Amino acid sequence: MTQSSLIADLIEALRCLPGVGPKSAQRMAYHLLERDRDGARRMAAALTAAADKVGHCTSCRTLTELEICPVCASPSRDRSLLCVVEMPTDVAAIEQSNVYKGLYFVLMGHLSPLDGIGPADIGLDLLSIRLGQGEIKEVILATNSTVEGEATAHYIAELARSHGVAVSRIARGVPMGGELEYIDGGTLSHAMAGRQTL
Amino acid sequence: MTQSSLIADLIEALRCLPGVGPKSAQRMAYHLLERDRDGARRMAAALTAAADKVGHCTSCRTLTELEICPVCASPSRDRSLLCVVEMPTDVAAIEQSNVYKGLYFVLMGHLSPLDGIGPADIGLDLLSIRLGQGEIKEVILATNSTVEGEATAHYIAELARSHGVAVSRIARGVPMGGELEYIDGGTLSHAMAGRQTL
Repeated sequence: MTQSSLIADLIEALRCLPGVGPKSAQRMAYHLLERDRDGARRMAAALTAAADKVGHCTSCRTLTELEICPVCASPSRDRSLLCVVEMPTDVAAIEQSNVYKGLYFVLMGHLSPLDGIGPADIGLDLLSIRLGQGEIKEVILATNSTVEGEATAHYIAELARSHGVAVSRIARGVPMGGELEYIDGGTLSHAMAGRQTL
Repeated sequence: MTQSSLIADLIEALRCLPGVGPKSAQRMAYHLLERDRDGARRMAAALTAAADKVGHCTSCRTLTELEICPVCASPSRDRSLLCVVEMPTDVAAIEQSNVYKGLYFVLMGHLSPLDGIGPADIGLDLLSIRLGQGEIKEVILATNSTVEGEATAHYIAELARSHGVAVSRIARGVPMGGELEYIDGGTLSHAMAGRQTL
């Protein structure tokens, strides 16, 4: 025991950050204590405020400290389009690309029957109610291209069809800058099947 | 502005961690909010406690919340040996290697006249007093192998000699597992000059 206990506690606490192991945590702790105590205090305040006050948007389920998140509340968004994603980070990624002006619905996960995660756990009861209200004309499925993401997309597609709402799935294919040589077979077969006439 | 402000604040605050850019900070913030709010609260408490209470050991200048750090206070350490290092992380690295049982002196930096960092700024006045007390028989210089580290080591060597205390410098050479092919010329020339008879 050569580190004082408060520093050891801080190193241990920093390890709950994703991708931070013992060495990085030690480096972060010493960096904050040696050079940036104000940053440490600011971070503590931000963590406490966010952990205590951030909840879910009652409309789209994304993380927000507001009753209705800024996207759902914005009068300039197209309320006939609903993009379904798995996580709030997916919303952030799509927003940063600046190509979508509709609303979102955040599942906060995906269907995973083996883990006991069913339709109600990912908010599909809420989604069903919204689809029934008739405002939404198209559901864009933007769940991940994983087995669970595809299964979830399939399930939601059925749900939307049962409400008579149009459904689409974001295109799968070769990413921009991608070299064919390094792209897996599954992606290539989707890229072939989804080819578009020029 | 599509993220709520508390989440944006948290992402911004996390960026003061070393090596954390906007993408990692976002990932960390969402991870904490989605999966580990207790971890976030624990981290906030640890940050506040450490930022408010951690100061410097009055004996060796390392970071600690105690008046005298655990190493300096330990009765089992060899009080005739003093290892001089630049930062508290260096103490942690040497302690983890478990090969040294003496005391430390932490400069909290190195001499850098161009940045206005002189001997008093790295505690050499305090070191001089300790060397004058006669308890220390050998000073081991373990500052970094950089230009500033070498200059600082040279300065402290003169200081120790003026007090009649023996001085040594940790060996420079090929690191364990290092392949000669990939080792720089400076290190090789040190390794050659410091060769030992078998």
